[in-house]
Amino acid sequence: MSRVYNFSAGPAVLPLEVLQNAQKELVDYKGCGMSVMEMSHRGKDYDAIHQEAIATFKELCGLNDDWSVCFIQGGASMQFAMIPMNFLGAGQSADYANQGTWSNKALKQAQMIGTVNVVANCQKDIPTRMPADGEFKWTAGAAYSHICTNETISGAELKKIPESGSPLIADMSSDILSCERDYSKFAMFYAGAQKNLGPSGMAVVAIRKELAEKGSTAIPTMLQYRTYVDENSLYNTPPTWGIYIFGEVMKWVKKMGKENLFKLNAEKAKKIYDVIDGSGFYRGTALKEYRSNMNVTWRLPTEELEAQFIKEATAAGMKSLKGHRSVGGIRASIYNAFPMEGVDCLVDFMKEFEKKNG
Amino acid sequence: MSRVYNFSAGPAVLPLEVLQNAQKELVDYKGCGMSVMEMSHRGKDYDAIHQEAIATFKELCGLNDDWSVCFIQGGASMQFAMIPMNFLGAGQSADYANQGTWSNKALKQAQMIGTVNVVANCQKDIPTRMPADGEFKWTAGAAYSHICTNETISGAELKKIPESGSPLIADMSSDILSCERDYSKFAMFYAGAQKNLGPSGMAVVAIRKELAEKGSTAIPTMLQYRTYVDENSLYNTPPTWGIYIFGEVMKWVKKMGKENLFKLNAEKAKKIYDVIDGSGFYRGTALKEYRSNMNVTWRLPTEELEAQFIKEATAAGMKSLKGHRSVGGIRASIYNAFPMEGVDCLVDFMKEFEKKNG
Repeated sequence: MSRVYNFSAGPAVLPLEVLQNAQKELVDYKGCGMSVMEMSHRGKDYDAIHQEAIATFKELCGLNDDWSVCFIQGGASMQFAMIPMNFLGAGQSADYANQGTWSNKALKQAQMIGTVNVVANCQKDIPTRMPADGEFKWTAGAAYSHICTNETISGAELKKIPESGSPLIADMSSDILSCERDYSKFAMFYAGAQKNLGPSGMAVVAIRKELAEKGSTAIPTMLQYRTYVDENSLYNTPPTWGIYIFGEVMKWVKKMGKENLFKLNAEKAKKIYDVIDGSGFYRGTALKEYRSNMNVTWRLPTEELEAQFIKEATAAGMKSLKGHRSVGGIRASIYNAFPMEGVDCLVDFMKEFEKKNG
Repeated sequence: MSRVYNFSAGPAVLPLEVLQNAQKELVDYKGCGMSVMEMSHRGKDYDAIHQEAIATFKELCGLNDDWSVCFIQGGASMQFAMIPMNFLGAGQSADYANQGTWSNKALKQAQMIGTVNVVANCQKDIPTRMPADGEFKWTAGAAYSHICTNETISGAELKKIPESGSPLIADMSSDILSCERDYSKFAMFYAGAQKNLGPSGMAVVAIRKELAEKGSTAIPTMLQYRTYVDENSLYNTPPTWGIYIFGEVMKWVKKMGKENLFKLNAEKAKKIYDVIDGSGFYRGTALKEYRSNMNVTWRLPTEELEAQFIKEATAAGMKSLKGHRSVGGIRASIYNAFPMEGVDCLVDFMKEFEKKNG
């Protein structure tokens, strides 16, 4: 077996030992005579997987019993719809920051449902920055406020979580559990699983139970947060395989030590940014003070050189380095599971490429 | 490895060779150096999986280019909401048959959205029957009509697909691709994947493109069918692993020969029904003319004997035979992937159990 270095923004690299273990028990899970994919979601074997996944995630995020962790199908994109459907009633308004492609998508879905206040607008500066500290103009009495902590496409991260004055909801799809963060500041946070948590096919949603209870009762059952909170995400058949792998990834994070992973994440990103900053050839896409440790984005002098860079990197076993089409350039997504050796390989390649083409 | 006989109603047994192949290529898919779970959904490797899964399913169902096959997260339960949100506008009404637990759930979600005509109501006879042939009272000018072809909990199947006069939408979660059926009669049909198609985590939705175009544009993007049709289910990150396994199961159906599988399905069910009918001990739950070939349900003389039956069957390697709590008794779900040997094992056990306890 020869593994490539997979820089995909999501679905993304998973810990090798999680994959190897899943492979080992794919046909017969721990001697119970069937695959996790074949198990009734009402049975004891699956129930243990489900409960442990939730418990490990809660422990890693430091969430107490005020919180419910829900598995909701449809990824972060479905959350963009569910949040305003639940919490943005007639006569109310909600605060949204426009920080990049993803927060803009969330904002547009909310505008289909009700009144939105754009409390910070970086539209003309995407993909270079996030709102500055004092730039948010929060609305007194807003139903809730919505931010995105890391814009995957820009490669820009919100370094300081703002205080909004209303229940704060955050899309953390690309930087959840990647750095030290006080999750108790939020009323709800969520992440499409396919970046830092597991395979695609669900959002992991942490929500304060008291917020879920306030949601609309006039929308379909599957779109109400209370359905997931009250039924422990077992109202209907959950995505059992995805939850199983998510739980395995959470156990891996715990075993590695999250503080250790957070430190490694910073080191991995710094190695790439150091090459960019030490070069007159590469230019970082995001401004220094907003640089993401999860998605490192940069440009080369010409689009031709960028295409050549990607082609040669691919041939050298480094895959999915192409930046999002809306931004161009290069993007290296280096989530928790991305190995340091892959970063070293990229950094060496970057130096060599500059030497030959700079 | 010792596999049990898994009679679960869903998630359910998958073809052993599909599991073994998935196991083989879990860490490194066909030499591309990563797992299917880690692949970008925008890359060539995943794209080939996605296209082939759709093409094989369309071929098996005999669908032409008027149709789109969509992968929509949230299972059949999310379809219960999306159908009326898309197609049941103000001033319109929709026809729903109340045939059992699942069609009743669909009906209730539609009632949250608009006006529903209950065109056949078996409520007092659940779980014993489905509507009889002339029992449906269709509404002229209905926006659409909704039926369920097989009620998993009852173990009752609609043997003849009715002509409703309006676009006919069917929940086929538990009997899709299990018997000969003219899919061209429908405007849309769907199935939660976790019974006859693959792992849980999505519904496979076949929809006429002209129907999708008629859907509301005032609902969130992720809830509009046109989003999935127009973007080939790649508007957001799809459940890639589930689609991969679904595609492998479809290839297995094609290899086995669907006519051959349909014949085996009838034979498997008949073996169990023959034991029931040849006994004064077991009583079929559904009336003979509505008996499902996918979910065989029956009772024993007492609940104590039912509990003993399940306990002894479990000890003999036959799992998940307990009937749904709302119906009680025994349920043997014997989908396409359920092996004949498992049915033979159950039939022998039933005879033996009757001899000892009858």
